[in-house]
Amino acid sequence: MDFSGNHILSIDQFDRSDIDKLFSVADKLEPYASKQKITRVLEGAILGNMFFEPSTRTRISFGASFNLLGGNVREITEVGSSSLAKGESLADTAQVLSGYSDIIVMRHPEEGSVKKFAEASRVPVINGGDGSNEHPSQALLDLYTIEKELSQNNKSLDGLRIALVGDLKYGRAVHSLCKVLSLYSKVTMNLISPEELKLPIKILNQLKASGINVIQTENLEEGISEVDIIYVTRVQEERYTNKEDANRYRGLLSLNQSIYTANCEPNTVIMHPLPRDSRSDANELDTDLYENPNLAIFRQADNGVVIRMALFSLVLGIENKIEESSKSVNWKVGLNN
Amino acid sequence: MDFSGNHILSIDQFDRSDIDKLFSVADKLEPYASKQKITRVLEGAILGNMFFEPSTRTRISFGASFNLLGGNVREITEVGSSSLAKGESLADTAQVLSGYSDIIVMRHPEEGSVKKFAEASRVPVINGGDGSNEHPSQALLDLYTIEKELSQNNKSLDGLRIALVGDLKYGRAVHSLCKVLSLYSKVTMNLISPEELKLPIKILNQLKASGINVIQTENLEEGISEVDIIYVTRVQEERYTNKEDANRYRGLLSLNQSIYTANCEPNTVIMHPLPRDSRSDANELDTDLYENPNLAIFRQADNGVVIRMALFSLVLGIENKIEESSKSVNWKVGLNN
Amino acid sequence: MDFSGNHILSIDQFDRSDIDKLFSVADKLEPYASKQKITRVLEGAILGNMFFEPSTRTRISFGASFNLLGGNVREITEVGSSSLAKGESLADTAQVLSGYSDIIVMRHPEEGSVKKFAEASRVPVINGGDGSNEHPSQALLDLYTIEKELSQNNKSLDGLRIALVGDLKYGRAVHSLCKVLSLYSKVTMNLISPEELKLPIKILNQLKASGINVIQTENLEEGISEVDIIYVTRVQEERYTNKEDANRYRGLLSLNQSIYTANCEPNTVIMHPLPRDSRSDANELDTDLYENPNLAIFRQADNGVVIRMALFSLVLGIENKIEESSKSVNWKVGLNN
Repeated sequence: MDFSGNHILSIDQFDRSDIDKLFSVADKLEPYASKQKITRVLEGAILGNMFFEPSTRTRISFGASFNLLGGNVREITEVGSSSLAKGESLADTAQVLSGYSDIIVMRHPEEGSVKKFAEASRVPVINGGDGSNEHPSQALLDLYTIEKELSQNNKSLDGLRIALVGDLKYGRAVHSLCKVLSLYSKVTMNLISPEELKLPIKILNQLKASGINVIQTENLEEGISEVDIIYVTRVQEERYTNKEDANRYRGLLSLNQSIYTANCEPNTVIMHPLPRDSRSDANELDTDLYENPNLAIFRQADNGVVIRMALFSLVLGIENKIEESSKSVNWKVGLNN
Repeated sequence: MDFSGNHILSIDQFDRSDIDKLFSVADKLEPYASKQKITRVLEGAILGNMFFEPSTRTRISFGASFNLLGGNVREITEVGSSSLAKGESLADTAQVLSGYSDIIVMRHPEEGSVKKFAEASRVPVINGGDGSNEHPSQALLDLYTIEKELSQNNKSLDGLRIALVGDLKYGRAVHSLCKVLSLYSKVTMNLISPEELKLPIKILNQLKASGINVIQTENLEEGISEVDIIYVTRVQEERYTNKEDANRYRGLLSLNQSIYTANCEPNTVIMHPLPRDSRSDANELDTDLYENPNLAIFRQADNGVVIRMALFSLVLGIENKIEESSKSVNWKVGLNN
Repeated sequence: MDFSGNHILSIDQFDRSDIDKLFSVADKLEPYASKQKITRVLEGAILGNMFFEPSTRTRISFGASFNLLGGNVREITEVGSSSLAKGESLADTAQVLSGYSDIIVMRHPEEGSVKKFAEASRVPVINGGDGSNEHPSQALLDLYTIEKELSQNNKSLDGLRIALVGDLKYGRAVHSLCKVLSLYSKVTMNLISPEELKLPIKILNQLKASGINVIQTENLEEGISEVDIIYVTRVQEERYTNKEDANRYRGLLSLNQSIYTANCEPNTVIMHPLPRDSRSDANELDTDLYENPNLAIFRQADNGVVIRMALFSLVLGIENKIEESSKSVNWKVGLNN
């Protein structure tokens, strides 16, 4: 794929070489994300950070990534303030907003809306999540995290053994991750969920067709015993029309340190797309895992920044110009101690 | 008028020479708005983008314009979060907020509020719309669009033939445009609206007094047949207390390609302040006009950026310093191919 | 205290030498706040301006202060859009958000929440207000204002005579100011409030223990007659569960020019943390005081910018690097004439 000047709408656009390219740019951007140096390469550029559905962390992550490249951010944070309410078509909104930005990140509650928006936009659009459909940067940062965590144990994505835990029916992050893992060989995937929240049959068949070794179970202990990665998800109440349905599944699959110790291999990595639900009736990832060095959930969130910086860099074609405007950091980074 | 250090509250402040000056600065800023180069002339300056009434596109347009000049933007996006709710006077709010900004754009639902705010502000204030009263940057970008579109057919504002279509009673944009067109000679204006939505008599009399040749009609086909510009507006439901009243007028005057072909001169330009209402019961400008090269509605929205950049430049007195801090653009602009 | 790399959570962290250091940095930043020059020292840095409770002016003041040092600002403006609503713990939110920022300002309605947040954050956190608990930057800007105003009459904080007026029970600003004034010697404090809104006994005892000469009264005229500073506060309706209770106290203590003239010494300075309630039934500081040169309320608000710039500078350890990236101002500052 030629990233430059193109929309990033779906994880389906990516083949292995695209992912390799993206990850190598992300690696190069790491010193900027961790404030070893700064770059002003996108000075003068404007990101239109258009969130027609609230999502604080994704919004801030995209915005911060653009700032780290030197660009400015203009934002929409709610649908209420938008012209859509006055009967404007998505195409018109796209035409107008793309006159104010060099690149747009768009999140919208309706499936397919971002693609429709992109078709009328005059600048590249990155899908920041459209309903339960696509959220490609999440899948990419998940994959990047898996690769980085594995590499510390001298493993690679080919041969990966992963357990996906929780709401596999509605979990958009899980669906996209499944798709992108299909690009790799000798992958084993343990799908751990209540019967009613099983992975949709369509995605399941795609996994099998691509050669992934799939095992389905409702038993957490069994499913997590021989894997490199445990990827846990939250029951997404906001996707249920009936809240009681959601409540029925919350708390069914909870991982804590003692279950981990009793069942997992020594370096099994724990991931979660966050937010995790830490209320006592859910608690899918217990806070007693805080001390576990294999808990990668915050490294995973951090990786969102480099991956989004890499996406911006490739789409805006500045991936080889970053160093040119590199400067040193003036301020004290992080906490004293 | 001396722009530098002054408020921009009303279109009444502008005479022809002011408009000429503004438009010539806007022309000079065009390469920056279209990303042929960037400028950092307002580096270190802060725009207080104070929207006490939601208006996504006006807010983003002002914010992006300030970013394009190199400045930063701090924003208020809703009245709920404001101290006005705690009984603070507009004068106090102005005093405080003007200590945080170098220039303020203010939008507020109450007529006259922005003027009151400006009287207490210690920095220049640009009216971003106060109720159904004034919204000068809209009128200026409309006029700029008319002039640019006309100039492509070797016509000028003197001698303009324009049709104003739709809600002429409540349409703030229309009222301001009428005022500013009074500055030009030999203007013919066809006012096309349902009887109940006719232009207020006060404005009508001003038009006539200024020498504009005014024709009033309810017939769309007739009214658009011999004009250079058709300026269509939306029925502004939000200005009606009774929604049924608004609904009665929606869809009465709809322009589409076949009506255009049957009635208009070859190069008649179509404008609209946007958002246009594309719901089937309104549809004042049909989407089948998308392919019509004379549909100028998105060029019009784009012109908002250069006009707002020009306003900022003149009010902050940097119109002759822009080139000094000019730089080349690092990134790939727009979409691939 | 070592500011660099540390959280600023409570006014209790400050001793006299800390305050001296902060104020001397603030003095050095004055030319930048008043736009005599600009600095880009924090170019590339990101402030996470996280407001989980609305507060326009504090939010904009912190954001503008960071912009004035050259940094970027990413923001949260409401709790609704946050992951907290999905059951995420404050610790998780802190872990994630601190991956997006170099420093965080946090405001949250719950007492103690900011401290809890800071414990999990990987970057320094400044308390922007947690319920009725702490709001250290307000106390610091109040103290800075007192010192600056006094110094014009050749007085200093030691020996200060101050009247605190209004809701002394719930007023967070008042409580913090009391604490910080305890650091100075020979202070006289007149506490003027209705019986029911008296200063909490715990704080009163601390004042006395620190050697402050405290006088309590319900009589405004008496209490303001022999002081250097009158510090007036608003009845904070939002802290009352029963609105009628709040209404009972509004308007009981109102200062206007004639009361001032009849009772005060010639140079008595009037302060207020703002917003003041200018509705006729409250009106704790009459607008007829606008012309009084001793009305320092807007100078006080302005001082918030330099104090916040100074806090950022010290916490990020750049207080001695500001001049290096100093530039001249390109634009016309303020209003014409």
